[in-house]
Amino acid sequence: MSSDPVVINPEHYRVVFENDRVRVLEYNDAPGDRTEPHEHPDSVMITLSAFSRRLVSGGAERDLRLEVGRASWLPAQRHHGENIGDSPTHVIFVELKDASTASDDAGAALGPSS
Amino acid sequence: MSSDPVVINPEHYRVVFENDRVRVLEYNDAPGDRTEPHEHPDSVMITLSAFSRRLVSGGAERDLRLEVGRASWLPAQRHHGENIGDSPTHVIFVELKDASTASDDAGAALGPSS
Repeated sequence: MSSDPVVINPEHYRVVFENDRVRVLEYNDAPGDRTEPHEHPDSVMITLSAFSRRLVSGGAERDLRLEVGRASWLPAQRHHGENIGDSPTHVIFVELKDASTASDDAGAALGPSS
Repeated sequence: MSSDPVVINPEHYRVVFENDRVRVLEYNDAPGDRTEPHEHPDSVMITLSAFSRRLVSGGAERDLRLEVGRASWLPAQRHHGENIGDSPTHVIFVELKDASTASDDAGAALGPSS
């Protein structure tokens, strides 16, 4: 079974463009929407909206609130998420190729690191 | 002399974060502002505002208009730019490390490629 978010949740993730160095994804959802478990390679996330989100990976859970216009490092990880706010989420992911392997238990690294 | 935009135009470019794979820059300007000639490595640009811009590299000149929320590939290049619109520019650059060498004459590649 694929762990690619574009395959698993095509209603939320779409490929903006791809070349030999990066794949760029756009993510959109509405309050209450949840994603299925999927993997991200090392990525930079850029928020095009503010949002509140619950991320779950292995036994770890993390709630985060991000403002619009924030760029954050998302280390390779497997997780799923839920929009726990009252506004849509709009995010760009710049996925880096030749990335490290996603961990099944992101633990302390869950979500963006900065 | 440095070709790093953060060194050359610190009033416009700031480092958001940096690690071993990327350096992320935030760019802000106002209508009429111009940058000095500088180099970008292979990068992904994400627009946080709409803007109109003139880019100049070697003998080539290109005017472009970008909408907010666009992600584009910026191949390594040396150029300078001018805000030729009537609104501020706000952009995130995700610079890829171990990048190809910037060309003095970006020519056909001037500005984002997609």
